[in-house]
Amino acid sequence: MENTPTFAVIGGGSWATAIVKMLCENLDHVHWYMRNEIALEHIRKEDHNPNYLSSVEFDVNQLKLTSNIDEAVSAADIIIFAIPSAFLKSELDKLSIPLKDKIIFSAIKGIVPETSLIVGEHFNEHYEIPFENIGVITGPCHAEEVALERLSYITIACANEDNAKLLVKYLNSDYIKCKTSEDIIGTEHAAMLKNIYAIAAGIAHGLGYGDNFQSVLMSNAIREMKRYIKKTYKMKRNINDSAYLGDLLVTGYSVFSRNRMFGNMIGKGYTVKSAKMEMSMVAEGYYAAKSAYEINKAKKKKKAKTPIINAVYSILYENKNPKKVFLKLTDKLD
Amino acid sequence: MENTPTFAVIGGGSWATAIVKMLCENLDHVHWYMRNEIALEHIRKEDHNPNYLSSVEFDVNQLKLTSNIDEAVSAADIIIFAIPSAFLKSELDKLSIPLKDKIIFSAIKGIVPETSLIVGEHFNEHYEIPFENIGVITGPCHAEEVALERLSYITIACANEDNAKLLVKYLNSDYIKCKTSEDIIGTEHAAMLKNIYAIAAGIAHGLGYGDNFQSVLMSNAIREMKRYIKKTYKMKRNINDSAYLGDLLVTGYSVFSRNRMFGNMIGKGYTVKSAKMEMSMVAEGYYAAKSAYEINKAKKKKKAKTPIINAVYSILYENKNPKKVFLKLTDKLD
Repeated sequence: MENTPTFAVIGGGSWATAIVKMLCENLDHVHWYMRNEIALEHIRKEDHNPNYLSSVEFDVNQLKLTSNIDEAVSAADIIIFAIPSAFLKSELDKLSIPLKDKIIFSAIKGIVPETSLIVGEHFNEHYEIPFENIGVITGPCHAEEVALERLSYITIACANEDNAKLLVKYLNSDYIKCKTSEDIIGTEHAAMLKNIYAIAAGIAHGLGYGDNFQSVLMSNAIREMKRYIKKTYKMKRNINDSAYLGDLLVTGYSVFSRNRMFGNMIGKGYTVKSAKMEMSMVAEGYYAAKSAYEINKAKKKKKAKTPIINAVYSILYENKNPKKVFLKLTDKLD
Repeated sequence: MENTPTFAVIGGGSWATAIVKMLCENLDHVHWYMRNEIALEHIRKEDHNPNYLSSVEFDVNQLKLTSNIDEAVSAADIIIFAIPSAFLKSELDKLSIPLKDKIIFSAIKGIVPETSLIVGEHFNEHYEIPFENIGVITGPCHAEEVALERLSYITIACANEDNAKLLVKYLNSDYIKCKTSEDIIGTEHAAMLKNIYAIAAGIAHGLGYGDNFQSVLMSNAIREMKRYIKKTYKMKRNINDSAYLGDLLVTGYSVFSRNRMFGNMIGKGYTVKSAKMEMSMVAEGYYAAKSAYEINKAKKKKKAKTPIINAVYSILYENKNPKKVFLKLTDKLD
C-alpha cells in the first residue's frame, strides 16, 4: 500500500471519537460510521459529537460521515472497530459486503458475548480475515485525555508488523506516541481482563478497603493477568509494558472508569441487577468476568490460578455476598 | 527466644506511631522512644500522639515512653527504627550502649545521607550487626490507613527467616497481614526508589500530564526499578510482589505522598529551593534521587538504564528545566 490508505472508524462513542480525532491530525479524510443519525446530523452542523468528547471540534470537511456501515466499509482499506463488544455482532450483521480483504483493527476491549471469543478471534473465525490482517489498538488511554491532547501512549499489536506500522504512522502526533507489538492475543486479553480488575477495585472501594489494599490488589492483579495470559498464549512478553500494566493501572485507578463505578455500587450494597440498571450501559467487565472465568475453567488442569476473577465472577453471577467473598479473597492475596 | 521478646520503637512520626499501634495489639508492653518531650508528655496525659495519627488512642499502661534512646534500646531485644533516614545518624550518635547483640528492623525508607548506604548496610557497617539480625519492614502501607484499621499488607524481609517470622507474629492482626521475604537489599532499595518515582509522578502532574501518562510512567518505573535492583543484588524475585510494585503504586498514586507533593510543586514552577522551604520536612526522595543516581553512576559500564531517576536528579541537582527534561524523558518511555 504505497499510497495513503483510506480509513474508516466504526462507532460513535468516546473512544471512536478520540480515534477519529487522532487520524484527522494526519489524514485528509476519515470515514466515520455510527448508527445514531441524530448524532451524525449534529456533527455535520455543529462540528462536534454531541454525546461523547463534545469539546473536540472537527473540521467536517475531513469527515465522511455515514450511518450506513456498508458505505464506510466499502470505501476503506483499513477499518477500525471501536464499539462495545456487546454490540459488535449486531453491527456486523448489518454488513452486506465482505470484510475478508480489509485490514481490521480492533479498539474494542472485551469479549464478543455471543461467541465468547476475543475480537480478533471473532473476525478470524467468522469473517475469514487472516490473523496477519487483524490488529489491536490498546491503551493505557482514556479517550477524555486524547480530547485534551494530553500525551498518551498507544500500543498497536498485529502479527504483521507492517500493518501495525501503517497504523502507527497515521495515529502518531504531538500528543500520541504509538509503539508496535506482535502480541495481539496477549494485549487483547489484557485489555479485557483489566476491566474485571477495575470492577474488583471498585467493589473493594465500595466495601471500605483503602489505598493500601488497592495497591496490593493491583499488584496481585498484574501477577494473575500474567498467569492467565501465559496459559492462553505463551510467548516472550514483559507484563509490565504499558499495554498490560499501564492499561491495568489507568483503568484500576480511574474514578471515571465505568467498570470501577459498577464495582463500587456493588461494594456499597447495590444488587448486581440494580447496579446494571443504574448504569446506562453495562460495563464491559461484567461480560468479561463471565467469559474469562469460563474460558479459564474449561482449561481444567491447565487453568491459571485466578482468585480475583473468581471472586468477581461469584459476586456477579452466583449472587455471593461481596463482603464475604472479599474477606476470603484477602487471604489469597499477598 | 522462647519467651515473648521485648520491643522498642524508635521514632515519633506517623509510621512509628502506626507500628506501636500494631504491636500493642499483641504485646503487653512496647518501649517507645521519641526525642520530642512535649509529645511524650501529651501521650502520657491524653493517650494519643499530638502530631501524628492523633486519632489513634493508646492504653498508656502498655507504653514505656522515653526520650532517652539508651533506655529504650537497653530494654529491648528487638528494635524497630522508624525515623527519617536524614535523622538516623544524629539519633544513633546519642546512643552510648552497643547495638550489636540486638535484632534491628528498619522501617526507614531511604538512604543514610552521611554514608550513602541503605539503612541495613549502615547498621551492618557501622554497628557490627550481622545481616542475619537486620531486617526491613516495608509496605505498601500508609500509616494513616493503619490508624483507621484498614486492611494492610506488610512485608518483613530478613536474611534469617526466624527473625522475620518473629516480627510477623507480633505485627499480624485483624487488619495487618504480614509476609516474609529474604530480599532485604531489594525491598529496601525498592522502598527508597519508589520515593524518586513519586517525585517524578508529582512533577508530571504539576506540568499538566494526565492519567494516561501517569500509568505509562509507573509502568516504566517498575521496569526501571527491576533493572536497578537486579544490578544491585541479583536474586530470584518477582518485582510485581506487593513489597515492590505495591509499594510503588501506593506512593506514586497517593495525593498525600510528601514526595509526590514535592514533585508537584516543582512541576508547577516552584524552584527546588522554594519547594524545600514550603515543606516542613524534606521529602525522602530528594536525598534518594542523589544517592540512587550516584550509586548507579559509580557502577560505570555495569550501571542500569535509569531514565526516570536521571531526569529527577537533573531537575533537583543540576537546575535543569523540568518541562524540557520531561519532554526528553517522554521519548525514552514506552
